[in-house]
Amino acid sequence: MRLRKKPWAEPEMRKDSKVIFNQSEHKGHWKEVFGNASPIHLELGCGKGRFITQKAQENPDMNFIALDYQNEVLIYLLRKINELNIENVRILPMRADFLEAVFSKDEISKIYINFCNPWPKDRHQKRRLTHTRFLEKYDAFLKTGGLLEFKTDDTQLYNDSLRYFYNSGYSLIFKTTDLHNSDLKDNTKTEYEEKFSSMGIKIKYASVERR
Amino acid sequence: MRLRKKPWAEPEMRKDSKVIFNQSEHKGHWKEVFGNASPIHLELGCGKGRFITQKAQENPDMNFIALDYQNEVLIYLLRKINELNIENVRILPMRADFLEAVFSKDEISKIYINFCNPWPKDRHQKRRLTHTRFLEKYDAFLKTGGLLEFKTDDTQLYNDSLRYFYNSGYSLIFKTTDLHNSDLKDNTKTEYEEKFSSMGIKIKYASVERR
Repeated sequence: MRLRKKPWAEPEMRKDSKVIFNQSEHKGHWKEVFGNASPIHLELGCGKGRFITQKAQENPDMNFIALDYQNEVLIYLLRKINELNIENVRILPMRADFLEAVFSKDEISKIYINFCNPWPKDRHQKRRLTHTRFLEKYDAFLKTGGLLEFKTDDTQLYNDSLRYFYNSGYSLIFKTTDLHNSDLKDNTKTEYEEKFSSMGIKIKYASVERR
Repeated sequence: MRLRKKPWAEPEMRKDSKVIFNQSEHKGHWKEVFGNASPIHLELGCGKGRFITQKAQENPDMNFIALDYQNEVLIYLLRKINELNIENVRILPMRADFLEAVFSKDEISKIYINFCNPWPKDRHQKRRLTHTRFLEKYDAFLKTGGLLEFKTDDTQLYNDSLRYFYNSGYSLIFKTTDLHNSDLKDNTKTEYEEKFSSMGIKIKYASVERR
């Protein structure tokens, strides 16, 4: 999603300690950022943050990191968590490409990837957040036994991602090509999910475990 | 150095294949980017690129990577290498914080750090490009026996850096607190070096070897 430029977003974000700009300085020290030792869940591509906001409210004893490279969406998330007095979210404006410079071994307990860019062209597929190239990055900081939860509207991306997970040694926990009519309860919807679902597009979902 | 915003810089840079935006996609494959197996030298904080341009012209059998996070200076470097038909330079618009996501073991033969930000405040010193925290990053991709060459006008940064090098196990090859009156020949000046030198400030220099 490309949004209109908001030159005022970054200055507002820089004033707020919930937004972390020098991400790599906290490598190995994310517990100290949150001030507690609760598990940390990471959403890659959080957008305006409806999903992570709800997760954080429902799980006040957990920590959440919301990552996106567009300040134009992160500013909405920042205002939302401040209005709702949500204390257990930190916002990282950065590209997922650089994650292994930011988190160290076992720092993350769970990863969420919701409606990432499907990059349909062959030569761009290695940019998919579920691509083997990215799964190898996650290996550097996702705990053994940690879950990766993935949702998409895109059938090709979904099928390819199941193969990436398999090839990278992740164990399948649950999958469905129609999430809203599946046995999975307790689903937290994202902005995209609401939109695609209202258009009649079925939501594909998989959760896999890092071995 | 903070320069006036140049919103036209990035679009011009994106059209040119000498500027690499998806840096981490080339991790482990930088030889292919250059199309040869010559050693690769990396300058961190290249600014407008006077130093690396001269190095590249004098060493056509070597490859050079110029890194800086400000498009406002990189655009000058890009135009310069195109005007001079320099083929052995690639430009990486990114922060040095994320280097370990971009280069893999032994990919870089030499690192240049010229007049980096001295970050004088205690709480900011870990942002110095010579800080132990950064030297550990370089360990992931600088060859054993590879050199790191460092210049600065700042005495405090210089003294601290010698200590960082020692603490991280780098061997001192040569040092001087007055580069232009030292035995070191074949010095390539940077824009800052010219400026500081003309103001009567002595240039401090050290080269160290990764063991």
